[in-house]
Amino acid sequence: TLQHIFKEIFKANLELQEDDHRKALLVSRKKKPDNTIVMVKGEAIGDGSQRFIAGPCAVESYEQVAEVAKVVKQQGIKLLRGGAYKPRTSPYDFQGLGLEGLKILKQAADEYDLAVISEIVTPGDIETALDYVDVIQIGARNMQNFELLKAAGSVNKPVLLKRGLAATIDEFINAAEYIMSKGNGQIILCERGIRTYERATRNTLDISAVPILKKETHLPVLVDVTHSTGRRDLLLPTAKAALAIGADGVMAEVHPDPAVALSDSAQQMNIPQFNEFMSKLKPLCNRNL
Amino acid sequence: TLQHIFKEIFKANLELQEDDHRKALLVSRKKKPDNTIVMVKGEAIGDGSQRFIAGPCAVESYEQVAEVAKVVKQQGIKLLRGGAYKPRTSPYDFQGLGLEGLKILKQAADEYDLAVISEIVTPGDIETALDYVDVIQIGARNMQNFELLKAAGSVNKPVLLKRGLAATIDEFINAAEYIMSKGNGQIILCERGIRTYERATRNTLDISAVPILKKETHLPVLVDVTHSTGRRDLLLPTAKAALAIGADGVMAEVHPDPAVALSDSAQQMNIPQFNEFMSKLKPLCNRNL
Amino acid sequence: TLQHIFKEIFKANLELQEDDHRKALLVSRKKKPDNTIVMVKGEAIGDGSQRFIAGPCAVESYEQVAEVAKVVKQQGIKLLRGGAYKPRTSPYDFQGLGLEGLKILKQAADEYDLAVISEIVTPGDIETALDYVDVIQIGARNMQNFELLKAAGSVNKPVLLKRGLAATIDEFINAAEYIMSKGNGQIILCERGIRTYERATRNTLDISAVPILKKETHLPVLVDVTHSTGRRDLLLPTAKAALAIGADGVMAEVHPDPAVALSDSAQQMNIPQFNEFMSKLKPLCNRNL
Amino acid sequence: TLQHIFKEIFKANLELQEDDHRKALLVSRKKKPDNTIVMVKGEAIGDGSQRFIAGPCAVESYEQVAEVAKVVKQQGIKLLRGGAYKPRTSPYDFQGLGLEGLKILKQAADEYDLAVISEIVTPGDIETALDYVDVIQIGARNMQNFELLKAAGSVNKPVLLKRGLAATIDEFINAAEYIMSKGNGQIILCERGIRTYERATRNTLDISAVPILKKETHLPVLVDVTHSTGRRDLLLPTAKAALAIGADGVMAEVHPDPAVALSDSAQQMNIPQFNEFMSKLKPLCNRNL
Repeated sequence: TLQHIFKEIFKANLELQEDDHRKALLVSRKKKPDNTIVMVKGEAIGDGSQRFIAGPCAVESYEQVAEVAKVVKQQGIKLLRGGAYKPRTSPYDFQGLGLEGLKILKQAADEYDLAVISEIVTPGDIETALDYVDVIQIGARNMQNFELLKAAGSVNKPVLLKRGLAATIDEFINAAEYIMSKGNGQIILCERGIRTYERATRNTLDISAVPILKKETHLPVLVDVTHSTGRRDLLLPTAKAALAIGADGVMAEVHPDPAVALSDSAQQMNIPQFNEFMSKLKPLCNRNL
Repeated sequence: TLQHIFKEIFKANLELQEDDHRKALLVSRKKKPDNTIVMVKGEAIGDGSQRFIAGPCAVESYEQVAEVAKVVKQQGIKLLRGGAYKPRTSPYDFQGLGLEGLKILKQAADEYDLAVISEIVTPGDIETALDYVDVIQIGARNMQNFELLKAAGSVNKPVLLKRGLAATIDEFINAAEYIMSKGNGQIILCERGIRTYERATRNTLDISAVPILKKETHLPVLVDVTHSTGRRDLLLPTAKAALAIGADGVMAEVHPDPAVALSDSAQQMNIPQFNEFMSKLKPLCNRNL
Repeated sequence: TLQHIFKEIFKANLELQEDDHRKALLVSRKKKPDNTIVMVKGEAIGDGSQRFIAGPCAVESYEQVAEVAKVVKQQGIKLLRGGAYKPRTSPYDFQGLGLEGLKILKQAADEYDLAVISEIVTPGDIETALDYVDVIQIGARNMQNFELLKAAGSVNKPVLLKRGLAATIDEFINAAEYIMSKGNGQIILCERGIRTYERATRNTLDISAVPILKKETHLPVLVDVTHSTGRRDLLLPTAKAALAIGADGVMAEVHPDPAVALSDSAQQMNIPQFNEFMSKLKPLCNRNL
Repeated sequence: TLQHIFKEIFKANLELQEDDHRKALLVSRKKKPDNTIVMVKGEAIGDGSQRFIAGPCAVESYEQVAEVAKVVKQQGIKLLRGGAYKPRTSPYDFQGLGLEGLKILKQAADEYDLAVISEIVTPGDIETALDYVDVIQIGARNMQNFELLKAAGSVNKPVLLKRGLAATIDEFINAAEYIMSKGNGQIILCERGIRTYERATRNTLDISAVPILKKETHLPVLVDVTHSTGRRDLLLPTAKAALAIGADGVMAEVHPDPAVALSDSAQQMNIPQFNEFMSKLKPLCNRNL
């Protein structure tokens, strides 16, 4: 019984300490109860409306990006994604067009008045990227590339941070803290599936991470349905789940001709598929919140 | 190029063979394109309407079950769950009331005209259970207890089969096939989270499994939000996701006083919480299908 | 600082309680500091000498088993394994010869004065098996088939308990406790690989589990190199690691003609491979302890 | 039967193609059958002798490093490790002394004629590091920081590449290929445990990775027993397993006073523990190869 009393005292004490620690994080909802709204070229991410981000996996040519940008615009989407620097498992796979890719993205986006989201993979490229992108994406493989996080935290530009391949939610939150601790609080979190034993999907979409991240932090949370599933036939159902569980938006990949895409051909939608995807999802937005 | 031709021929060939193999499974949608509808005391599971299953983790007393049964009935739910045989990690944890528990469940269910779902853990108890339960549950730890699957397949009673702790979707489908191959096709599948490295939740809810199972099999698919998350605060958001992605129903645990529950106290709802849970979910049913 | 004092008090307290809980387990080394030695037909398992268990994955015919028994005997091994009841993912895979298989095993073992180890998968078969086997094996898929554990705990016969496909070490220890709590302390633990994301091997051999199990319990610990790796080329190196880390023995599969084996053909050794395997390992036994 | 013939043709064909692909990798043993031997200040890594690398987790002061360097030297070890740039989950944890740490390492190493191994975390620091370190370490979190890999591949300095937290063996091999494709073939691979569901150890040591990496590549393979287990009591047994399975060396952490270490205090040995560790392991080196 004495032990029991000690135990209860200690439990309370421990919880208090953990609370304190989390409260100390700048990204924590305990530090700032109100939602952070990230403004991207006039579009508010995290304001209660559910948004979409779409575009090809990799930038391959101006024509390819422009074709996608046109349909993205037609669907009323503001945010165009595209990979210029591609982190690939093998050094002999297509590595992206680099700066040339960023220029193509910007050209196509300007034409259709869209905002550009693109991944940057090395601290030295952050400065250059500022001229071309509206949101700096930090990819799953770089979620704990702390020098990159610090560099992204030192500029005045929104950052979309993807969860690492096998990162815990706690590590994900701390990675965001690296960015915010350098002064940049315009952070969008993105759940993109985690690595598990299951092989039916490319990764396992951890849908529960969305409400946990919304509860623990004040940052907007998106779901990347393309990389989490790796299967075109699962994009629509998982996007429905993401909207229903309260994600601030959905990211998906679309390519004019996925069969000849230079990367990830099995999981991108073609344009008619994308139009159908959007027509099914739009009526579901902002209904469950 | 000769190699390339061979390759294409062979790919087609391999896919054909895999298709053949899956077509051969009795639970496969290729074998039977139409949805299986499992009738439980007049309630149709898998007919396009989304259903709920609720009840305490473990049967503890008649009073406890009756109190839950009453509110389950009030919420318009037909299916009452409760554990009489509890598979527990430690032999010194509460192991359930056994046959006495089944009798309590039946008494309370009869009083409120509900159907009973309860887990059976050994082949020898299947026959006895037929007098007390409307649905035989086979739990996660027994998903590959093949003798139990065969025994459940040999009786004329619906079976709710839970996915194993770390079972692949393919193993899950084959476990269902064990039941159906013995003659019993009244099978309901239940996704209940898988074991991963993530520690923020008890298990990781594999929400993508729902559309995959619906596509690969003709069986109804439920989501157990309680065991997949292990967190009371995630029951509502994950249930929304389950309904949105097209699950045929949601299973959740409710207890008159979770704090004193003999098992899983941290994840059960009390009665007011359950009423609020239902009031939020009912308007979302059958909207996205 | 007051908080800090409380914290230190509480840490000590918590550790004390956890210690108490573990001490309470019958399988715990805290309960019984001395090693348990399991006697199998005159062979001592866990006495400090490192032993081998070998035999085919599945019993297919008397000739097949006898051929293996002969070479097992020649290698100075006492323990012959073979599967009569085979838990298989698909109901249409070879399910084993059942009782007929046990009879074949016993006949061949008697001829060469060997002890028989074979898996039993359902409580009802334990009694019958007592006439044919010297060690009851409980397989990975049944590690939490608690009724089977209790049945094996109620007889006077050694039990080899395999770690579950995705069981934690803590769950593994508690599964052994189910057996011992029923009165049977002749338990041999067997690490056989765990399910992870890595696909280069069938499972991931958790070699660290061996010293942890030796430290936490007083039971002998074996390593099944066949199922943990699923690759014939890894049997020898992983067996070396198992011996070096202090396992009480190594289990491996050998088949007269693996290419035509009815199960697991890719991972069994043929007889010359097995002879080479043994000739490389014997000089390494009992050297590092 | 026609199908069967096609199938056999195709299988052979597929295997041929996969072989071709692997043969193409510069790190593949198919490309270069002989072992690569990496020379570090006169010490040959991968020449058949088993080596040790030891030192503190993080460089904290000259006195701390010098004290460890002295004992490392006494044990006949040539390679001193120490972290100057520390990738930490939280931005508020000790981040290492940076360049100052490299200088301390070099000073202590010079005094005892040791070689220095230290982690570099950003491409921009590679050039500077060349003046201080004998081996550039690329840590687990940066295994797919491809810009860092390319930078390390562009200098003439040995690289120790650690396996990523949840990297497959295939991804690990391809990460090494990034380095070698830039011209630097002096690569040492290091297995350091993978992330799994098991919580008894910090990570799960994938001991099977050692023979697989030795078979698939011509590079030396070490085992980091400290980070794979995260437990001081497992360092000795897992090091024995690493030596027995044929690792080219073992890496372990030692600190004059682990209790006050600024990072990873629970897993570092103190000096007497390290001396005992070495006295147990030295007789086991080079015996099983």
